[in-house]
Amino acid sequence: MLIAVDWGTSSLRAARIAADGTVLEQRASQRGILTVPAGGFPGVLHEACGDWLEDPAALCLVSGMAGSRQGWVEAPYCPCPAGFGELAQALLWVEPRRIALVPGLSCEADGVPDVMRGEEVQVFGAMALLGAQHGTFVLPGTHSKWVRVDAGRVQSFATCMSGEFYALLRQHSILARTLPQDDGALDEAAFVRGVQHAQRSGSLLHAAFSARTLSLFDRLDTPVAPSYLSGLVIGEELRLQARDAGDVVLVGSPQLTRRYAIALAALGRGSRALGAEATWRGLWALARSLESA
Amino acid sequence: MLIAVDWGTSSLRAARIAADGTVLEQRASQRGILTVPAGGFPGVLHEACGDWLEDPAALCLVSGMAGSRQGWVEAPYCPCPAGFGELAQALLWVEPRRIALVPGLSCEADGVPDVMRGEEVQVFGAMALLGAQHGTFVLPGTHSKWVRVDAGRVQSFATCMSGEFYALLRQHSILARTLPQDDGALDEAAFVRGVQHAQRSGSLLHAAFSARTLSLFDRLDTPVAPSYLSGLVIGEELRLQARDAGDVVLVGSPQLTRRYAIALAALGRGSRALGAEATWRGLWALARSLESA
Repeated sequence: MLIAVDWGTSSLRAARIAADGTVLEQRASQRGILTVPAGGFPGVLHEACGDWLEDPAALCLVSGMAGSRQGWVEAPYCPCPAGFGELAQALLWVEPRRIALVPGLSCEADGVPDVMRGEEVQVFGAMALLGAQHGTFVLPGTHSKWVRVDAGRVQSFATCMSGEFYALLRQHSILARTLPQDDGALDEAAFVRGVQHAQRSGSLLHAAFSARTLSLFDRLDTPVAPSYLSGLVIGEELRLQARDAGDVVLVGSPQLTRRYAIALAALGRGSRALGAEATWRGLWALARSLESA
Repeated sequence: MLIAVDWGTSSLRAARIAADGTVLEQRASQRGILTVPAGGFPGVLHEACGDWLEDPAALCLVSGMAGSRQGWVEAPYCPCPAGFGELAQALLWVEPRRIALVPGLSCEADGVPDVMRGEEVQVFGAMALLGAQHGTFVLPGTHSKWVRVDAGRVQSFATCMSGEFYALLRQHSILARTLPQDDGALDEAAFVRGVQHAQRSGSLLHAAFSARTLSLFDRLDTPVAPSYLSGLVIGEELRLQARDAGDVVLVGSPQLTRRYAIALAALGRGSRALGAEATWRGLWALARSLESA
């Protein structure tokens, strides 16, 4: 029996998974790591799934920010290239053979480190679900990750602060003055217009101003302006990352992977999307690699 | 006699300038256009320099946001290419031959308009001060302007929201958590490190994350992190704009033009800097072009 826990900044999700990979039961709570005082992690885990932990044969793997400096115990980043083997080796056991924290990954490019924590499990889950040993995996979000996998190992990855930049521009910049209060439904035409302008513009620093000037000249309707801005930001991410990528695998919520699929298609790139199942599959695959080790 | 007024969003500055260009007297107030109710503009102008306006031979030229939709009267943008002649033609007279609003400039690139309002006067002032008929003029700020001048006319320009992006990242992003409360004095080494990383990174969306990861691995000292972040943002602006520019003329406050001069030098580019004198010289040169017309 595997108790899989995805313990992030603002929420805790847990699943009980059978030996064959079947997800038997799922739970979620708002006890993200920011709500847990120092020393409080074992207690909160038992609140969430103490009944499951009564099974003496249960293995519990915890991924996400619970392994960060602000979490339960710091599980040092596992350096790339890294596959199942390296990740399993680098598990930080808080209770021997029973409860382990999954470390994040680190890599280095241009003399600067990059990090992820939690997304590595989704990547390995997506690889297991697709039977893929190589490819580009994209995990859109507040801090999007572009992950290059080869020979079953994560070779390198890069972070784009896309979700965060969108929120900053949406809420706190001069653009906020001319945007409607609600984002509304995605307007595909305005979104793609933003994606394409981002390719020509060369930098969001310049392209973002177009959301203002187009409004000023009545060439962008206010209700679709959030879609246009979203296209500018995601388009900037694609301008940087998608150039050398072939088709990519998107892993994330349907709302977000849909936007990336539309943007990629507008640039002539293919994609397929996976959802939350990747997390459970990744922790299950990791547990299996421990058994066989 | 010229009464030159630079009426921006948050302040009003005025100067009395003799026929030979000598600035005889200067005044400043906090009565930016955001503090002025509709219909209140003539009154606030008279509060600021009514005594100067008693001179029946005085000409009053007002530049800046006073000519915007939120200002006194909207003075429609003058399209590029535009020189003294086009700008003089496009003046919006609120009192015939006595008081005029200077319009901003607009241009179009990649199917998207760009605008400036107030900076055009600084560019023309810098041209007059340097006797220059062509070159690249850079006006750093909340929304930096890169202005290409040829044959004495502004041919095109581009806006980068650099000052605003810095403030958003500094105050509202996840990076704010690891930055010190005060920016402190500029640390040149950290600043240049940021400028250079921005050249390699290809997008601020990715490069900005390095301010976090370098801190995480104790490879960026907290007190100099704001200088590094400033280097990332200004470096991104230069990555986009400075590629095809030769030496540039910087117009702005000494604090800001110094940063740009350091960043440009780090990329092997030369620059010279002018300050607030460019505004008065620009309005004076515009007034002279009216006399000779």
